[in-house]
Parts: sequence; structure tokens; C-alpha cells
Amino acid sequence: MSIVRIATLVVDFALLEQFKSALKEQIEESIRVEPGVLTLYAVAEKDHPSRFTILEIYADQAAYEAHLTAPHFIKYKNATGGMVKALQLVESEPLIPGMKIK
Amino acid sequence: MSIVRIATLVVDFALLEQFKSALKEQIEESIRVEPGVLTLYAVAEKDHPSRFTILEIYADQAAYEAHLTAPHFIKYKNATGGMVKALQLVESEPLIPGMKIK
Repeated sequence: MSIVRIATLVVDFALLEQFKSALKEQIEESIRVEPGVLTLYAVAEKDHPSRFTILEIYADQAAYEAHLTAPHFIKYKNATGGMVKALQLVESEPLIPGMKIK
Repeated sequence: MSIVRIATLVVDFALLEQFKSALKEQIEESIRVEPGVLTLYAVAEKDHPSRFTILEIYADQAAYEAHLTAPHFIKYKNATGGMVKALQLVESEPLIPGMKIK
């Protein structure tokens, strides 16, 4: 059964471009090399561009745990730890499992 | 250019099953008949199942406006108006446009 999380982050505005670059690199690498990372769909608020929401979908618990220890994820966490002012992770249930993006 | 919104809703717990049923029907119909509705990915919090987040992606402004006046959407709004205790709609920008769900 897939694992779904909603992450919300508030980032230091002065470091916003560096954060976005690191997050983008991490997501692209995760999608490319981890078949069990089904999506990491990240958005920033138009009116508050340092506030992010990420829809995280993993194929199963093993895929989720593998992601947390993947070198590109650890690199991202180390690089961005000081940029993130607030982080909330909310375990969630999809209303319609298997929903895609056209 | 695609339109991306994050909707967050808090629903009357006593009406949760009715709300979920109406939302699911609306989403399935929107995805089926509206090519410009790219996704409506709805999740509920595991620990607070009456709190929902929906990632809404529309192909463009016209698709978004068409959705708001589609009969299945108006039916949903009328049916659920009294069930929704709080609604927040946040215009957002995707970090990686074109991101999919595997």
C-alpha cells in the first residue's frame, strides 16, 4: 500500500534560491533512480514564495525508508538543514488511490 | 501554463462519510470528462481524517474556469457547502512543471 505524506516547509527567504536549487536536484534524482518514489510534487505559494508544500507518494514502506537513506536525500538534508525555518510532515490517506497526473 | 492550487479543508466530522462520497464523485467525474483537469489529488490526514488537502492542477486558466462552472462541480459545491467548516485556497507555482505520478 502506498505511503502518502504532505510536507509543508517555510524557508529562510534570504536563502530561497539555494534551497530551491537543492530541492529540485534532490527530487529529480529521487524520481530518476528510485522506482518506489512515485512523486515528490513540490509547490511554492505565489504570495509567499518561501512557503512550500510537497505531496510525497511512495510505493510502500520499504520505498519510503530507502528514500530516507538515499545519498541524494542525505545530501539535500545536510545542505538545507540551516535554510528550513519550519517543517511539518503529515501522514495522509489518499481519497482515490492510484490517482495520477494527466 | 498550468494553474496549480493547494486547497485545504476542514469538514464537519459528523458528515465526513457524506463529504468524502461527494468529493470522490466530483473528482472522478472531473477527471473523466474534463481533459484540462490534470489532477485533483485529495488526501486526508491520518490523525485528523476530517482535514483534507487537495493538489489541484489545471492545464490553463480556461480549464480552471470551465471546471468552476461544470455541472458536477456545482452539484458538489451545493451538496457540501454546509459540511465544510474551513476552506483555504492557495495559488501556487510548481517547482518542477510537468512532474507526474509514476
